[in-house]
Amino acid sequence: MTRVDTIKPARKTPRFSDTQIEMAHGAGGTASRRLVEGLIGPYFANPTLQAFADAASVSVNGTQIATTADGFVVKPLRFPGGSIGELAVNGTLNDLAVSAAKPLVLMATLILEAGLPASTLESEIEAMAIAARKSGVSIVGGDTKVVEHGKADGMYVTTFGIGIADGRANLDPASIRPGDRILLSGPIGAHGITILLARGELDIEADLVSDTRPVWPFVEALLERVAPAIRWMRDPTRGGVATSLNELVRGSDYGVALFEESVPMHDAVRGACELLGLDPLHIANEGQFLAVIAPDRADEALAVVRAVPGGEGATFIGEVRAEPKRRVIGVNGYGGTRVIDMLVGDPLPRIC
Amino acid sequence: MTRVDTIKPARKTPRFSDTQIEMAHGAGGTASRRLVEGLIGPYFANPTLQAFADAASVSVNGTQIATTADGFVVKPLRFPGGSIGELAVNGTLNDLAVSAAKPLVLMATLILEAGLPASTLESEIEAMAIAARKSGVSIVGGDTKVVEHGKADGMYVTTFGIGIADGRANLDPASIRPGDRILLSGPIGAHGITILLARGELDIEADLVSDTRPVWPFVEALLERVAPAIRWMRDPTRGGVATSLNELVRGSDYGVALFEESVPMHDAVRGACELLGLDPLHIANEGQFLAVIAPDRADEALAVVRAVPGGEGATFIGEVRAEPKRRVIGVNGYGGTRVIDMLVGDPLPRIC
Repeated sequence: MTRVDTIKPARKTPRFSDTQIEMAHGAGGTASRRLVEGLIGPYFANPTLQAFADAASVSVNGTQIATTADGFVVKPLRFPGGSIGELAVNGTLNDLAVSAAKPLVLMATLILEAGLPASTLESEIEAMAIAARKSGVSIVGGDTKVVEHGKADGMYVTTFGIGIADGRANLDPASIRPGDRILLSGPIGAHGITILLARGELDIEADLVSDTRPVWPFVEALLERVAPAIRWMRDPTRGGVATSLNELVRGSDYGVALFEESVPMHDAVRGACELLGLDPLHIANEGQFLAVIAPDRADEALAVVRAVPGGEGATFIGEVRAEPKRRVIGVNGYGGTRVIDMLVGDPLPRIC
Repeated sequence: MTRVDTIKPARKTPRFSDTQIEMAHGAGGTASRRLVEGLIGPYFANPTLQAFADAASVSVNGTQIATTADGFVVKPLRFPGGSIGELAVNGTLNDLAVSAAKPLVLMATLILEAGLPASTLESEIEAMAIAARKSGVSIVGGDTKVVEHGKADGMYVTTFGIGIADGRANLDPASIRPGDRILLSGPIGAHGITILLARGELDIEADLVSDTRPVWPFVEALLERVAPAIRWMRDPTRGGVATSLNELVRGSDYGVALFEESVPMHDAVRGACELLGLDPLHIANEGQFLAVIAPDRADEALAVVRAVPGGEGATFIGEVRAEPKRRVIGVNGYGGTRVIDMLVGDPLPRIC
């Protein structure tokens, strides 16, 4: 046991200077990044891992495992297409999948509000069990805490997952090169907009369900067929496709051109975003993934994803460009361009 | 991907029949057990692991790892001797330690209430970092979510730990035998009573601090010197020593005799419990552990623990007996006896 009484935080990034926590700090955009990089990361910094990230790679006697932790506070607990329990399982499995790690086990910790109907809890436990079993994964343990009525909002779920790294792929944002193609697995924004509409605060009706699902079947197919061509993957959840792509290029020597008209989305998502002044590129997805693929195998990769049931909507939405560095540039059908930034603020709190 | 639309829960225990969640379901006693065994366990049951437990053993390419998940909702966030962040790290490390697993990495998920002062969060992040560094463990990742003001109580922390199983010990409650000695690492009840007093709702003052600390140094010393003699270990947190010992014997062919006057505790704990009508055997500890040791190595084991700084208060508090089976019997100095049950209800909510 080492004696440590104070920690001198590593300071590589601007210090977090906000005086209190706001909803935006949980939204996955710029405020979340400031919190994680400016406050949490410097304390937790360690020799092997500088980032406080969703997923981490750890060696266990020579076997590389991926571990991931996620919290779920979605409101309402049930929504068209899914629920907090199902989301908690698939969200964690998807973090492992886009790290090219085959899920091994899950654990789950529940924070319950006193007064929660037992039937509500049972529904979510069942949803977790079903989602885990569909993916062939066991939930091997966890913890349950209860807080007073009014000190939570029904229930919160946190999940932890362990996966075995698939050695066939070598994912590294530093490996991207100009000309690489950006593959998206399907239409964007369905999760975030579904949650927004499910709250019933807006007078909008739409025939829309969350896209929540495991992405491992697609990733597994890619790994089997074109593993060496996969440079990077990410599930664009909080902060959406725009935030994920900005995270890809922010430490890179390259940029991304996003062909805006190529980005698939349901009419209901497009319509709701127009009505509400939201950018669909910032809306959360729970069943999609982005992959950067080397150009010589890109068409093959797309065919592989499209051949997996549920992958029919996959398409290329952009490519890596030499300039402008560290930027995501939206290109429209007329050749017009705009800078696409990370999410700022939190237009849709508690969507996952 | 297997197609699964409903789960038929395994039913080995009485079904959970409470209609709503109450504080007692999070207290670690009989109500918690009913919830976990009657509602959660049957859905999550799987071939290798029937229990939804704090810690689980998982094989990674032949290496046995222990994984553990814990939630922390302690109120107040800071208390004499510790804080939620420090507790979250040490609590999880201790779950690994009593599984005879050397901690490898930790992850942490934060659920923050909007309006939380950033300085409060920073203090807890620092406390987590200090606790992790003291034990030589890295916090390699996590997640941060924010809920509206009024939908949490400052902050909740969930932690996830992975450890490498120490092959020298073979812990198994089924391996206990009459005559085995029950070793306790030090005085009980300091954590729970400290939290209770820190809330300031009672007109009691006491010079008491939480016992929160890592127990790995004691466990490591035992593993180095008397590993084959260790039958079982547990950290008696929620539900206290009484609940842990009942969990030991409930599936056993044997019982436990607890020599009540041998159980060490601070006068302040004894006094507060008398005043409030609480049984100190039900009060939570955060820096103690129980070990069942084979009789031939028991004295050596006690000397080993006492030789580790902070282990001076270790002592034997009981022994395994052939009768009565599956019971913990308290024996007083006059030979009188009483049945010591698991915690029922929740006299001290949110103590961890």
